[in-house]
Amino acid sequence: MFEAIFENVRRKSPLIHNITNYVTVNDCANMLLACGASPIMADELEDAVEITALCGGLNINIGTLNRNTIPAMFAAGKRANELNHPVILDPVGAGASTLRTETALGLLKEVRFTVIRGNISEIKTLALGSGTTKGVDADVADRVTEENLDGAVTFAKDFARRAGARVAVTGAIDIVTDGTRTFCIRNGRPEMSAITGTGCQLSALTAAFVTANPDRPLEAAAAAVCAMGLCGEIAYSRMSELDGNASYRNYIIDAMCHLTPTALEMGAKYELR
Amino acid sequence: MFEAIFENVRRKSPLIHNITNYVTVNDCANMLLACGASPIMADELEDAVEITALCGGLNINIGTLNRNTIPAMFAAGKRANELNHPVILDPVGAGASTLRTETALGLLKEVRFTVIRGNISEIKTLALGSGTTKGVDADVADRVTEENLDGAVTFAKDFARRAGARVAVTGAIDIVTDGTRTFCIRNGRPEMSAITGTGCQLSALTAAFVTANPDRPLEAAAAAVCAMGLCGEIAYSRMSELDGNASYRNYIIDAMCHLTPTALEMGAKYELR
Amino acid sequence: MFEAIFENVRRKSPLIHNITNYVTVNDCANMLLACGASPIMADELEDAVEITALCGGLNINIGTLNRNTIPAMFAAGKRANELNHPVILDPVGAGASTLRTETALGLLKEVRFTVIRGNISEIKTLALGSGTTKGVDADVADRVTEENLDGAVTFAKDFARRAGARVAVTGAIDIVTDGTRTFCIRNGRPEMSAITGTGCQLSALTAAFVTANPDRPLEAAAAAVCAMGLCGEIAYSRMSELDGNASYRNYIIDAMCHLTPTALEMGAKYELR
Repeated sequence: MFEAIFENVRRKSPLIHNITNYVTVNDCANMLLACGASPIMADELEDAVEITALCGGLNINIGTLNRNTIPAMFAAGKRANELNHPVILDPVGAGASTLRTETALGLLKEVRFTVIRGNISEIKTLALGSGTTKGVDADVADRVTEENLDGAVTFAKDFARRAGARVAVTGAIDIVTDGTRTFCIRNGRPEMSAITGTGCQLSALTAAFVTANPDRPLEAAAAAVCAMGLCGEIAYSRMSELDGNASYRNYIIDAMCHLTPTALEMGAKYELR
Repeated sequence: MFEAIFENVRRKSPLIHNITNYVTVNDCANMLLACGASPIMADELEDAVEITALCGGLNINIGTLNRNTIPAMFAAGKRANELNHPVILDPVGAGASTLRTETALGLLKEVRFTVIRGNISEIKTLALGSGTTKGVDADVADRVTEENLDGAVTFAKDFARRAGARVAVTGAIDIVTDGTRTFCIRNGRPEMSAITGTGCQLSALTAAFVTANPDRPLEAAAAAVCAMGLCGEIAYSRMSELDGNASYRNYIIDAMCHLTPTALEMGAKYELR
Repeated sequence: MFEAIFENVRRKSPLIHNITNYVTVNDCANMLLACGASPIMADELEDAVEITALCGGLNINIGTLNRNTIPAMFAAGKRANELNHPVILDPVGAGASTLRTETALGLLKEVRFTVIRGNISEIKTLALGSGTTKGVDADVADRVTEENLDGAVTFAKDFARRAGARVAVTGAIDIVTDGTRTFCIRNGRPEMSAITGTGCQLSALTAAFVTANPDRPLEAAAAAVCAMGLCGEIAYSRMSELDGNASYRNYIIDAMCHLTPTALEMGAKYELR
């Protein structure tokens, strides 16, 4: 199934509009190109609404909010909804500040999201309506492990149902659910968390996969999560003893260039619950 | 001729002011350093006008427009004109939205550009005054090929004359013209289009080449286009089977570090029409 | 001593708030992760003040000022002062424009900085209250050499005393002083200046080192300067003849990933004056 999903990405080359943070934006653009999609960035209100109409999907990432880009996120999100374009939310740092939490919650109210992708602390903030996130990484206390996986799945399913969206909680074990069916994914490497923006790249990738597969957004989101993790594994196997997070970042994007639909199908490690 | 032009870049180390998009700005800065120039970025109105006066040349790139940077583009462009500094326009995404098209057309009216560099779809938008661009890449229907090259050259020459600027239309075959003489350039690799920002980097590079060679802007622009394509070729020959667009990006900038004026002279593939 | 300082960084993993320029922000984030710290970026006034309270230290870099981020710098700086968090100033391009010079001088008046890190031209601008900087690199006439080192040390000590901060003047020879004791550091490679943002990365790194070592900010700043230079040396020894500034950038960050506290202790090249 993931084979056909990834083939659609490569074949359709969806154009993805990103309203995203300036920290990791270049990597998001190169990751989108690596998977076969095309990126465009536009975050000024007037420009963003028109660009979103031109694109196939929209990726909203709140990593570096400012007063100009927030209205662009709301307006582009609504326009994408009108056009039935997939919209992804990456609530970076939700729970770490009032502005981030309230912007994410406001977006959830006014925009219909196809997929919400974040770490467990960010998703908990959205589910509870208030947050305790310590920065942009998941709190240690929150982390999803084999021990608390059942509870985490129940939590994610519940939130997905309430939010009317697919939810991807990513970490050591990834959970992707639409509230009914759930993928528990075990691709990836812990070293990926030492690279800035692997989460942001995954959100952009998810937008590409979901846009190219409008009739199966849950599977497409799960395929994107597996693809990112698998590229992390492939790239890790290539690391020399001198390589660190900077080279690893490049190798992951490189691996996405070379990943074939068949290799994704074979390398995806997940169970359906 | 390109040898002497590139020697001037290395020797004079021109300081280039960039008002550019936040997606590819880091690569533009490293590319400028790689060719021997120095970058500075400033996009707040007050800062930009003063910084432009300090610099030798100005590179304006509309890839991520916002309401703060647009006035800075106009004001810095006019100030650079007063000082007789070269000014480059990269109309990223002109034709994809009203804001981009109108900003580019407005800049063309109020600022005298030394070189306008874009893909064929962007340049067509500027020439026709309205656009049909599908994102930030050239439309397939527009692409310059051996078959339609004559027509594309005539079009570019006509636009160069009307705009009073040199025009560089880059793609599989690059056209650089001042309306009278035209360079048709065949350096480069198709894989370069899978890297975000090779066009942006080329515009920054063009600014450096033109600034260091004020008495022959057409040849300097053509030399920059050849240099970028040649580095794409050199970098490609270095790719391992695991390397993809992320490593390729680094290798191209690396290649510019090592490119000698003589190697540029020898490796440039162009015909003069 | 540097061994224990670096161990604290790795062990405490300080969360560093960066209000920084969009040119080099990604490298700053990856460098912070490489040294064992965590980055977060927030530059909108409302967000920045709250994020700074969440973090351990604050890094203010004026490389791409705009009217939105300037108030955030002042407000976050004051908030960090109230909380006794270390605050670093990187006065990028001070002296190159009125906006940069005045913002830096204003910040010096209203915010208490733990460390001010810049090149000699930027620091001279701050010390003299007006500037002559030619861009973002140090003027040749200003550069610190073995011949003028004594004078430069006296100047830096005097400024450190007047500013009530540690001062790090970085270049071929680095000077780190609190006005009484002075580290003269000879780590690093001249090729590092061909990479955009090695200075910005060092400022971010300094924030991490100082935050993890609140009781010895002078030594922590000196350790950060040695660590950056040492990584420049290690990375340089890894360069192939095809590698240039883009790969070198990655290798330096990679080297920080692998640098051990003991290797820093052994490789640091400094004299105390």
